[in-house]
Amino acid sequence: MTSIVRNQWYVAAYGREVGREVFGRTICGESILFWRREDGSATAMSDRCVHRRFPLSEKPSHLVGDTVVCGYHGFTYDADGTCVAVPGQTRVPRTARLKSYPVVEQDSFVWVFIGDDDRSDTVPIPRAPWLDQEGYTTVSGMEPLAARASLLVDNLMDLSHETYLHGGYIGTPEVANTPITTEVDEDAQVVYVSRHMDDADCPPFYAKSTGIEGRIVRWQDIEFHPPCLYLLHSRVAPVGTLPNEDGTDPGGFHVEVVYAITPETEHSTHDFWAVARDFALEDEGVSDFLRESNRTVVLQDVVALDALERVLAGEPDGYQELSINIDTGGLAARRIMAAQAAAGAEQVPESPAALAR
Amino acid sequence: MTSIVRNQWYVAAYGREVGREVFGRTICGESILFWRREDGSATAMSDRCVHRRFPLSEKPSHLVGDTVVCGYHGFTYDADGTCVAVPGQTRVPRTARLKSYPVVEQDSFVWVFIGDDDRSDTVPIPRAPWLDQEGYTTVSGMEPLAARASLLVDNLMDLSHETYLHGGYIGTPEVANTPITTEVDEDAQVVYVSRHMDDADCPPFYAKSTGIEGRIVRWQDIEFHPPCLYLLHSRVAPVGTLPNEDGTDPGGFHVEVVYAITPETEHSTHDFWAVARDFALEDEGVSDFLRESNRTVVLQDVVALDALERVLAGEPDGYQELSINIDTGGLAARRIMAAQAAAGAEQVPESPAALAR
Amino acid sequence: MTSIVRNQWYVAAYGREVGREVFGRTICGESILFWRREDGSATAMSDRCVHRRFPLSEKPSHLVGDTVVCGYHGFTYDADGTCVAVPGQTRVPRTARLKSYPVVEQDSFVWVFIGDDDRSDTVPIPRAPWLDQEGYTTVSGMEPLAARASLLVDNLMDLSHETYLHGGYIGTPEVANTPITTEVDEDAQVVYVSRHMDDADCPPFYAKSTGIEGRIVRWQDIEFHPPCLYLLHSRVAPVGTLPNEDGTDPGGFHVEVVYAITPETEHSTHDFWAVARDFALEDEGVSDFLRESNRTVVLQDVVALDALERVLAGEPDGYQELSINIDTGGLAARRIMAAQAAAGAEQVPESPAALAR
Repeated sequence: MTSIVRNQWYVAAYGREVGREVFGRTICGESILFWRREDGSATAMSDRCVHRRFPLSEKPSHLVGDTVVCGYHGFTYDADGTCVAVPGQTRVPRTARLKSYPVVEQDSFVWVFIGDDDRSDTVPIPRAPWLDQEGYTTVSGMEPLAARASLLVDNLMDLSHETYLHGGYIGTPEVANTPITTEVDEDAQVVYVSRHMDDADCPPFYAKSTGIEGRIVRWQDIEFHPPCLYLLHSRVAPVGTLPNEDGTDPGGFHVEVVYAITPETEHSTHDFWAVARDFALEDEGVSDFLRESNRTVVLQDVVALDALERVLAGEPDGYQELSINIDTGGLAARRIMAAQAAAGAEQVPESPAALAR
Repeated sequence: MTSIVRNQWYVAAYGREVGREVFGRTICGESILFWRREDGSATAMSDRCVHRRFPLSEKPSHLVGDTVVCGYHGFTYDADGTCVAVPGQTRVPRTARLKSYPVVEQDSFVWVFIGDDDRSDTVPIPRAPWLDQEGYTTVSGMEPLAARASLLVDNLMDLSHETYLHGGYIGTPEVANTPITTEVDEDAQVVYVSRHMDDADCPPFYAKSTGIEGRIVRWQDIEFHPPCLYLLHSRVAPVGTLPNEDGTDPGGFHVEVVYAITPETEHSTHDFWAVARDFALEDEGVSDFLRESNRTVVLQDVVALDALERVLAGEPDGYQELSINIDTGGLAARRIMAAQAAAGAEQVPESPAALAR
Repeated sequence: MTSIVRNQWYVAAYGREVGREVFGRTICGESILFWRREDGSATAMSDRCVHRRFPLSEKPSHLVGDTVVCGYHGFTYDADGTCVAVPGQTRVPRTARLKSYPVVEQDSFVWVFIGDDDRSDTVPIPRAPWLDQEGYTTVSGMEPLAARASLLVDNLMDLSHETYLHGGYIGTPEVANTPITTEVDEDAQVVYVSRHMDDADCPPFYAKSTGIEGRIVRWQDIEFHPPCLYLLHSRVAPVGTLPNEDGTDPGGFHVEVVYAITPETEHSTHDFWAVARDFALEDEGVSDFLRESNRTVVLQDVVALDALERVLAGEPDGYQELSINIDTGGLAARRIMAAQAAAGAEQVPESPAALAR
């Protein structure tokens, strides 16, 4: 069975990637074309011409007003995917229509619904408001991963790897040494993993961006919305500086690290990453530093996870992993995603009215 | 079932490609060695030494007189494929013999028969006499295509794509807009598709080569001999200039565009292309321009068809295409080729004499 | 069935390749990590962390004293493969243990046993003492081969190919023309192939290294220990110069050419080669010349065998080869290796005591 969870919203792109040029991306194995109408709204449809399956994202395919023209024989589609012109004849076949996809723009992302369109209204889109909110400054990017999405989920749910894989950037000994607490909200389908370090080394990522000298309080509060959106609420402050009782926290520095995890295929993933901060809002130097540092960290993960994917591809099925306490959050995420995949694979039942006939 | 039509002659090479060096090319999945005897005649045989299957086209294999010597252990074969020397012993095993292939040189091409050799005499080789005929000047080339041959057949049978894929070279709006007529000669196994434009833009390909200024009469008369030889009889002339009633046509410019479509494997194709003209015969500038222009057009097709092959490779079987009027010729070609493939796959029946024993 | 012979010792590396850095190599399809303890002894274990299968040979995995630390989450193993530390908790799971491999260093090689460790003591390691012996100077290297090991065995057992593939280096006409004698010692599992040329051209490999001018006596005495170690005892001397009756041979130049043939996977091979000589022991110029010449010859084989592997990959199973007298040694080697592969694939039988219960 496929490991990809269907009947879910996924991040397909940053809003800035979609414009007045045809833009193709494979999401959960489906080849999808994205573009904006002249009024600025984004649209998504199958990236395969109904005639001979030429990719509409491939040159010389192009936009003309609110239509896209196939670069092979000129079949022309409107923003809903309806074919409005074909070559050599005036009659357009009635069945000439591209599959169109539900699209929502939110929190700087273009979200697309993969599954039965009927269900799109019933599935909530998780939020990452900081990415597009006053009071925060965000740097972001996307790295292609030649590895299955579950390897990235494993990676992010267990931050003890920061100490080893990302030493010198975001890892210090305390991350691996400090135990975690894990909570699962089965109703909301959210996994929480927290690690609060009261007295920890300050890694360069935070030292250079916040200006703190000396040791720190470092909180890592993970909130994962399987299968697709990972939030790391990160708080650092000088040792001993805690939030006020009323929840205000003038002495803390807050970083919201967001990963949108979107399967491209069964064995490759779009790894969207964003880092939003509530300090040094106008400081380009801090933005450049955080962008470069986080990208370096993501690429360290990419190298490691691509290597793991090659390992798994060469393994017989059913090999045994060994899991320990640090894996509690990752195992919870796997369990929820397996249930989601099973539910998403179910057929839409016929409606009672249909059955009554 | 394989889509490759067997028991057919195919273009394996231009005559100029085959000489006194070993030359290997895969035709319809068969690895074949081509070379010329000292008397200049071409020969074709299996490209795999009978001993350990070393490719005879691979260095240091080489010709010695009218023999080819394997570069691994020195097994030596004559022009009929018979082994005439082996290392370390004087006796040559009686069964040491390479499969030899029927070869015919015609119209500048080296044709090879793929199938049961017994049938080669019964299968006609289609003609493209202009390529090697006084009164015509020809430019030609071959581009490797990482796509199945049928995609190239589809492409060439429906020239409405010129308007979109080859705009600025050979396409103008009239090509896509003008309806076609299609005829199929079932006995001769030929598909004809004609598009006669009485008043059309003159694309650069013809404007620069003929010198015509202004609009043109443009006739495109396709004559396809499935599975392997495609002829486009192209006539352009100033608007209003038609052939005389006796068939002479002093006011027209004639270009014979020839494609030999040879499967390399199930999913790759040798795309031989040639452009013969009956004007500006000695003009090197026109030759250079037509060679460069046609090669550019062929490479535009290569990019598009290679993309389509990747699309098809990723599709589930049995996806639905939508066909319209422009596809009539291509669909007829597909039908004939499917019948040819089925017939070519049949076993040669035992002869009645054999059965009587 | 796999063609790889299990329950055998194989050369995994030169001793000089294994040190105080983690070093991974795939041997017979198994991913193995090699390193040296602080006391200098070599050790070998599975190259996959028990936690999430990260390769321990991949950066930032590294050694700390006599332990190896996984670069992903810091799982730490001692030289026997026992896990001694994990992140976030003090208790180490009892089952956290890497498979460890028997290792022997001998004749400049690191040998590893592939199979049931219990049997390692019962399987002898063949010797190539010259590579690490006073009175000899050795040059050596390893080239990766994208071809199955049996193609290299075929190649080395039939040196008639020197005349064709290695002409100008080690091949002369006499090699292909001189018949061989073949002997098989079934008990010791050794194949001997000899070719004694009394009056032969001296190829550059020997002319430049020995200084002999004019024609030579050239003996090639192959001693192959299937599946893994190939020895070519080579003697050259001026024409007419033979060993003394007591076996001493002051007029002869002796070269011991050694190949260790180690399957990496079913379709790729580590091709270790070494050339030991008993003359010009201190002459760096001769060492450089022989190293460069033999590497060139090995790379000629690599090109040819990689081509053959591609040929075989494209062939239907069960094609017919044609074998002649020169193939006697190679066929004997194949037969022994097939028997070894069948024996190696057998399960270790349960002990009689176990059966009695």
